[in-house]
Amino acid sequence: MTRSNCFRALAFLLCSLSTISWAAAQATPPAKPRARDLGVPFDGTPGPLNAITDVSGVTVGHATLISGEGKLQVGKGPVRTGVTAVLPRGIDSMMNPVFAGWWSLNGNGEMTGTTWVEESGFLEGPVMITNTHSVGVVRDAVIQWRVAHGKPDPTGYWWSLPVVAETWDGWLNDINGFHVKPEHAFHAIDSANSGAVEEGNVGGGTGMVCNEFKGGIGTSSRKIESKIGAYTVGVLVQCNYGSRKNLRIAGVPVGKEIPEDPAYASTSFNELDRGSIIVVVATDAPLVSHQLKRLARRVSLGLGRNGSISGNGAAAADHVVDLKMLPNDQIEPVFAATVQATEEAIINAMVAAETMNGIENHKVIALPHDKLRAVLKKYNRLNQ
Amino acid sequence: MTRSNCFRALAFLLCSLSTISWAAAQATPPAKPRARDLGVPFDGTPGPLNAITDVSGVTVGHATLISGEGKLQVGKGPVRTGVTAVLPRGIDSMMNPVFAGWWSLNGNGEMTGTTWVEESGFLEGPVMITNTHSVGVVRDAVIQWRVAHGKPDPTGYWWSLPVVAETWDGWLNDINGFHVKPEHAFHAIDSANSGAVEEGNVGGGTGMVCNEFKGGIGTSSRKIESKIGAYTVGVLVQCNYGSRKNLRIAGVPVGKEIPEDPAYASTSFNELDRGSIIVVVATDAPLVSHQLKRLARRVSLGLGRNGSISGNGAAAADHVVDLKMLPNDQIEPVFAATVQATEEAIINAMVAAETMNGIENHKVIALPHDKLRAVLKKYNRLNQ
Amino acid sequence: MTRSNCFRALAFLLCSLSTISWAAAQATPPAKPRARDLGVPFDGTPGPLNAITDVSGVTVGHATLISGEGKLQVGKGPVRTGVTAVLPRGIDSMMNPVFAGWWSLNGNGEMTGTTWVEESGFLEGPVMITNTHSVGVVRDAVIQWRVAHGKPDPTGYWWSLPVVAETWDGWLNDINGFHVKPEHAFHAIDSANSGAVEEGNVGGGTGMVCNEFKGGIGTSSRKIESKIGAYTVGVLVQCNYGSRKNLRIAGVPVGKEIPEDPAYASTSFNELDRGSIIVVVATDAPLVSHQLKRLARRVSLGLGRNGSISGNGAAAADHVVDLKMLPNDQIEPVFAATVQATEEAIINAMVAAETMNGIENHKVIALPHDKLRAVLKKYNRLNQ
Amino acid sequence: MTRSNCFRALAFLLCSLSTISWAAAQATPPAKPRARDLGVPFDGTPGPLNAITDVSGVTVGHATLISGEGKLQVGKGPVRTGVTAVLPRGIDSMMNPVFAGWWSLNGNGEMTGTTWVEESGFLEGPVMITNTHSVGVVRDAVIQWRVAHGKPDPTGYWWSLPVVAETWDGWLNDINGFHVKPEHAFHAIDSANSGAVEEGNVGGGTGMVCNEFKGGIGTSSRKIESKIGAYTVGVLVQCNYGSRKNLRIAGVPVGKEIPEDPAYASTSFNELDRGSIIVVVATDAPLVSHQLKRLARRVSLGLGRNGSISGNGAAAADHVVDLKMLPNDQIEPVFAATVQATEEAIINAMVAAETMNGIENHKVIALPHDKLRAVLKKYNRLNQ
Repeated sequence: MTRSNCFRALAFLLCSLSTISWAAAQATPPAKPRARDLGVPFDGTPGPLNAITDVSGVTVGHATLISGEGKLQVGKGPVRTGVTAVLPRGIDSMMNPVFAGWWSLNGNGEMTGTTWVEESGFLEGPVMITNTHSVGVVRDAVIQWRVAHGKPDPTGYWWSLPVVAETWDGWLNDINGFHVKPEHAFHAIDSANSGAVEEGNVGGGTGMVCNEFKGGIGTSSRKIESKIGAYTVGVLVQCNYGSRKNLRIAGVPVGKEIPEDPAYASTSFNELDRGSIIVVVATDAPLVSHQLKRLARRVSLGLGRNGSISGNGAAAADHVVDLKMLPNDQIEPVFAATVQATEEAIINAMVAAETMNGIENHKVIALPHDKLRAVLKKYNRLNQ
Repeated sequence: MTRSNCFRALAFLLCSLSTISWAAAQATPPAKPRARDLGVPFDGTPGPLNAITDVSGVTVGHATLISGEGKLQVGKGPVRTGVTAVLPRGIDSMMNPVFAGWWSLNGNGEMTGTTWVEESGFLEGPVMITNTHSVGVVRDAVIQWRVAHGKPDPTGYWWSLPVVAETWDGWLNDINGFHVKPEHAFHAIDSANSGAVEEGNVGGGTGMVCNEFKGGIGTSSRKIESKIGAYTVGVLVQCNYGSRKNLRIAGVPVGKEIPEDPAYASTSFNELDRGSIIVVVATDAPLVSHQLKRLARRVSLGLGRNGSISGNGAAAADHVVDLKMLPNDQIEPVFAATVQATEEAIINAMVAAETMNGIENHKVIALPHDKLRAVLKKYNRLNQ
Repeated sequence: MTRSNCFRALAFLLCSLSTISWAAAQATPPAKPRARDLGVPFDGTPGPLNAITDVSGVTVGHATLISGEGKLQVGKGPVRTGVTAVLPRGIDSMMNPVFAGWWSLNGNGEMTGTTWVEESGFLEGPVMITNTHSVGVVRDAVIQWRVAHGKPDPTGYWWSLPVVAETWDGWLNDINGFHVKPEHAFHAIDSANSGAVEEGNVGGGTGMVCNEFKGGIGTSSRKIESKIGAYTVGVLVQCNYGSRKNLRIAGVPVGKEIPEDPAYASTSFNELDRGSIIVVVATDAPLVSHQLKRLARRVSLGLGRNGSISGNGAAAADHVVDLKMLPNDQIEPVFAATVQATEEAIINAMVAAETMNGIENHKVIALPHDKLRAVLKKYNRLNQ
Repeated sequence: MTRSNCFRALAFLLCSLSTISWAAAQATPPAKPRARDLGVPFDGTPGPLNAITDVSGVTVGHATLISGEGKLQVGKGPVRTGVTAVLPRGIDSMMNPVFAGWWSLNGNGEMTGTTWVEESGFLEGPVMITNTHSVGVVRDAVIQWRVAHGKPDPTGYWWSLPVVAETWDGWLNDINGFHVKPEHAFHAIDSANSGAVEEGNVGGGTGMVCNEFKGGIGTSSRKIESKIGAYTVGVLVQCNYGSRKNLRIAGVPVGKEIPEDPAYASTSFNELDRGSIIVVVATDAPLVSHQLKRLARRVSLGLGRNGSISGNGAAAADHVVDLKMLPNDQIEPVFAATVQATEEAIINAMVAAETMNGIENHKVIALPHDKLRAVLKKYNRLNQ
C-alpha cells in the first residue's frame, strides 16, 4: 500500500524550576535568514532564539549523514539521512520524566513508546526523530544510552520504552542501506544543547521533502503573557509532507505560483498527497497530561490551536505529588501560541533547507526566497 | 441490528476536604442480606456502608416506577423502570466539578457527555442512569435542574453537557411507553443522600436482568491503607448483562448449576450474550484525569484492576491550580480496590434483586439464595 | 467551565443502487446567491445542486423556530432555534443502516449515539442537529418516530441509540426555555427531501454564530471522476465556531479586514475562540467503516483531507454480506473532495445567513457580501 | 517508573481461499501433555492441532536463545530470550496484507506498527514477538527481510512499518546485553511452518514469567459451526503477566493453593501485579477491520469475548475490491471462540513451560502438574 499524509504530535511540559542560563545561547544566533527575515507575516511574539530551546531546559542535537552522489547502490548510498534528539530536561531527561501527551492525525507512521506515554501521562527520556527504516536501531540505542548513563527503576531492574518517530526519506536517501547506526543516535543525544537550533537539511530532516520543496528540521517559539503568568511554548518539526499545489504561506497560494522544478520526475509518485510531519511541542506552562493531549491534537491540525505541558516529574515517588495545573479556561493562549509556532516552524524548515541531489540524481529544490517574496507581494501579504 | 454486551465505566475523584459526617448514615443499615452475608467470599476491606457513599461527599438517589401487570399496552404499561442519580459532591456537584475519566468496552450503549469528560478531564454535575429510551428526557431534565439550582458560566451564559447512561429494560418494561418524565430525574437528584444505598429493583435498575437472573443496582466499597495515605474507593453498578451459562461467582459456575426458570421464553432472544453494565467509581485518592481513565478501563474489565479519582475542582479558576497527584507507582492499590468493589457490587445487585414479572408476563427470577449457597459449598467456596 | 472550540464530523456512505431521480430536484434552485456566485474561488467540481442531496438517496429537512423580540424571558423567548434532519436513505434510513465513521476534534460538545457508530461501524436512522439544550428531546423523539414508522429488531424488541449533535445558540436564543419539542423533530424528518437545501438561518442553524458573523446551515458537494468510478461527496455543516480575527476565506484575512459590528458586546465573552461545528459527510463511494473514520478525521481538520462512505447495509443479515471496498490507495480523491466541499459549505452557511437580532437585542450581522468581494479583490483573489 | 500490567491484542483474518493442506501438520503432534490432557476443563471444540496454525495459512516460527548460567555479566549472559514470528499467510504475508485490528488494555508496552494497522485496517507482514529491549533490532530486521524477499510499493519505493511486540524478560535474561540479533528474527521468519506449535520456553517466550510460575508461548484454537458457515479461530500468546495470588484456573484459586517456591526473592519486586501479555488472534471468518478491533478488545479482557478477521487483501488495487463481511449479529460465536481459545492458550503456556534458572540464579518454577490436578480436584473441577 502506498502511504498517505501523516501528522503526529507530541507535547510535553517542563519544570519551571530549571535554572539553565540563556546568556550563552543568545550569543550564537543563526546566520541564515529565517522566514520572518524574508517578510513572511506571523502572529505572536517569539522568544529570544525563536526556537524550542527557548523553553528553559530543552536541548536539541543532530547527527547528519550526507555522503555519495548519483546512482543508488543499496548499502553504499548516496546517503541523505540522520537523527535528531530533543531532550526535555537536557541530560536529566533520562531519570526525570515530564508530563506528556501525544496524538496522531493520520496514522501511517511510526512513533514508538506512545502507548506508554498515553497510559502513564509521562515522557521518559528524549524524543528521537529519524528515517522510517532506522526507527529500530535508534530505539535500541536509546536504551543502550540509558543503561550507560542512567539508573534502573526502583526495583533494581531496567525497562525502557523509548519514543522514536520517523518520516520517510527514500526519495533522496538510500533508505534500505540502513546507514543510521547506534553511534549516530548517541551523537545526537550527546551533542544536544540549549542554543540556537540548526534548521533545514540536518539531523533526521536531512533527506526530507516538504510540499515538494526541500524540507527538514524547523523550529519556532512563542511567549505568552497572561494574567496567570508568563510562559514559553516551543515547537520543533521534522517536515516531510504535502504537495506543492496545496502549499499556502500566510494564506497565499505559493505552491501554485511556483510550479518550476517539480520534486518528482514520476507523475505516479507525485500524484498522492503523501508524507508526514513530526511536531514536538515543549512548554513551561503548568499543564497535566490530558491537557497536553488536547494540545497535541491541536498541533496536528495546524488549524488554530495547539499545546504542550510542564510540571514536576513524578517518577517512582513514594509520596503524593504536589503539582500545578493551568485551569482549562486559561489554555487558549497556549493553544494559540503553539499553533502560531508550529506554522512558523514549518516555514522555517523550508526556508532553511537547501536544494539537494540524492539517489538516482533526484533533485529537490529549496523554496526560492526571491520568488516567495514576489508571490507574497502579488497577494498583498509581504511584511516588509 | 441486535445489541451485544456492553461495559461502560466512569470514574471520578472527590475532594478530600469534605466534612460531611457519617454518623447518621451508619444508623440505617440495609435490612436485606447482602452477598457477603450469604457467604460469598470477597477480597479486601469494605467501608462502613460497603457502598459508594462511603466516599465522603457522594450521594445517591433513586426514582422507581413500578405499575401495571400483564399484557403490554404501549404507553400504559406494565412499567418497570426508573432513574438513579449519583452526585459526586452532593448538592455542590452542579457548580464544583471533579476530575473524571471514562471508558467503554463494548460501545453498544449511550453515555452522553463523555466527549466533554474526555476533553476537559472533569465531570460537572451528576451521573444519571436510566433506561435506553429515556436518556433524552433525563438529560434535558438535568439541564433544567441546573438552571433552577446553579449558576451560569463566568461569561454569564449557560451550557451543559450532562452525563446520562443507560441499559435496556425492554424485556420487563414498556420501554416504548416513555414513562420516565423530568420530575423523576428531579426526584432522583433531590432525594440523593449519603446513607446506605438501596439495591436491586430500584431506580434505573428496576427492570434490569443480569446473567439471566433479576439484576439492577448494586454497590460496594473498599478501604485502602497505603504508605501514602488512607483512601476509599466506592462503586455503584447498574447491571443488565450476561448469560446464565457464563455466570461464575467466586470462580464457581453458578449459572450452569442453576438452570431452572430461564429468563427468556424465546430461545432466539436468549442465545446472544447481550446486555450492558454501567459502573460508576468514586474515590478520594488524589488522582488526575488520565489516571482516572486508566481506572475506568480496568473497571470495565473486571479482570483485576480498576480505579477512580479525587481532587480539587478547577472550574473557571483564574489562577494556576494547586493539586495533588498519586504517583503512578502507587495506583495499584486503587486498582485492586476498585476491581474488588466492582465484583462485589455486581453480586450485591443480584442478591438484592427480587423476582419480577413484567410486560407480557415475562418473569425473571432472583438469584435463589439457598441454591447459591449450595453451589458455593459444592465447589468448596462457601465462606461460612 | 467555559467551552472552547469544537469540531465534530460524521461520515457515512450510501448504497449505489439507489434509484431516486434527481430531475425534480434540479427544478428548484435556491434563489439567494451562494459563495461561488459572489466570486469566492473554490477547487473541484460540484454536483448539480452543490448540496449534500447530490448524493443519491440523501434527504434533508428543517424545523425553524423564530419568534419574539427583545428582552429575554426564559421560557417565553425570544426564540431563535430549530432542528435539522439528514436522512442517509430518506425514509428507508430507519431500517436500513449505512456504513459510518465519526470523529471529534475538540470534544466540548455532544453527539449522542457515537459509541455505537464506533462499535458497529453503522449509522442507523437519521443524523439530527439542534441546540445544546435540546439534544435530549430530539433524541427521544427520534425513537418515538422509529417506533411509529419502523420495525423492532429481529428478536422482536426495540432499542435505539439515535445520533443527535448540537451547537450552542444561547447568544441569540432563549436556550433555557427549551422551545424545541418532539413535533419539531418529527417535522424535520417528515419534511426531508432530496432537493436544494435551504441554508443560513434555518433548522438547527437558526441561532448560530460563525466567526462572529451570522452562521447556520451550509452545504456543498463534489463530483469525483477516477479510474475506479464516478462518485459524489456531499457535505452539510451547522457552523457555530470561530473568531472574526482568525477568519480567512480563500486564504485572505477577511475577518481582520471587516472589524465593524462586533458580534459580542461583552469583551469577556468575545475573547475565547469558542464554538463548534457539526459536519455531516455523505458519499456513494464504496468505503467501509474504518475508512469512513479516516474521512471524518480529515473533515474535522479542514486541513486538506476528508471523507465519507457508502455501501450495502447489513442489519440483521443471516448470511455473509458481500460488499465492495475502495482500496486505501484510491481514497485520496474522496479526501480531497470532502475537504473542498467542507470549506465551501462553511462559506455557504455564512453567505446565506442573514443579520439576526436575538435575546437582549443581541445583534449578529451577516457577512456583508460587498465587503467580502472588496477584500478578496484587495488580495487579488476575487474570482470574477 | 515501575511498570504495571499490560494486555495487548492483535487480531487478523485470513483469506478463505487458502489451499494449504493440513495432512502433514497433523502427523506431528506435540509430545508434552497440554492443559486439557491434565484435566483442566475448557469450553468449545478445538481444531486438530489446538493451535493458531489450525487457521489455514498461518505459520509460526521461533528462535530460542539459551546460554550461560549464574551471575549476570551484562553483554555475556546468562541469556534466556528469543523471537517468535507469526505469519498470517506464511511466506506470502509480505506482499499480501490481511485485515487487522489491534487493541491495548494497559499501555505499558510497545507494539510497533499499530498506528498504521489502525489507520489502514491492514496488517502487512508478520507479527514478531520478542523482549522489551530487542524490539528495535527485530523491527529493522523485518524491513531487511522484506527488502530481500519482497517488492517495493507500486510507485517503486520501499517503506515498511513492521509490527513488533514485546514483553519483559529481565528477571531471567540479560536483557541489557542485547543478545537478539537480526539473524534471530530471520530464523524465526524462515523457520515458520504450519504444523504443531512449540509452547513454553521457546522463542520470544523463553524467559517469561506468568502468574509467578514459568510462562512463555502458548496456543489454542476453536472451531465454529454456525448457520453462516464453518470457521476457525486460533490464538497464540506470549504470557508474562500476573501475580500468583490472583491466579485462577477454571475459576479455582490455584495460585493461593500453591504458595511454594515464590518466583521473586525480593518482596518489593513481587508486590506489584506487573507484567504483560501479547495475544495474536487469527481467523478465517469474514470480518473487516472495525470488527477485528472489536475482537481484539475482547481478547484483552479475557472476560468473555474476543475475535479476529479474514478477507481478501487489498493492497494497491486499482479497482474496487469485492469482499465479504460477517454481519455484526453473527459475531458472537467468533467472540466466544476467541475468549475460549485465549484462556486455554494461556494455561497451555504455563503447562508447557519448564522450571528455569536465569541471571543471578533467579529460579522460576513451572506450574507443578500434579499439584494443579490436586487443586482442581479439591474444588470439584478436575475434568478426569
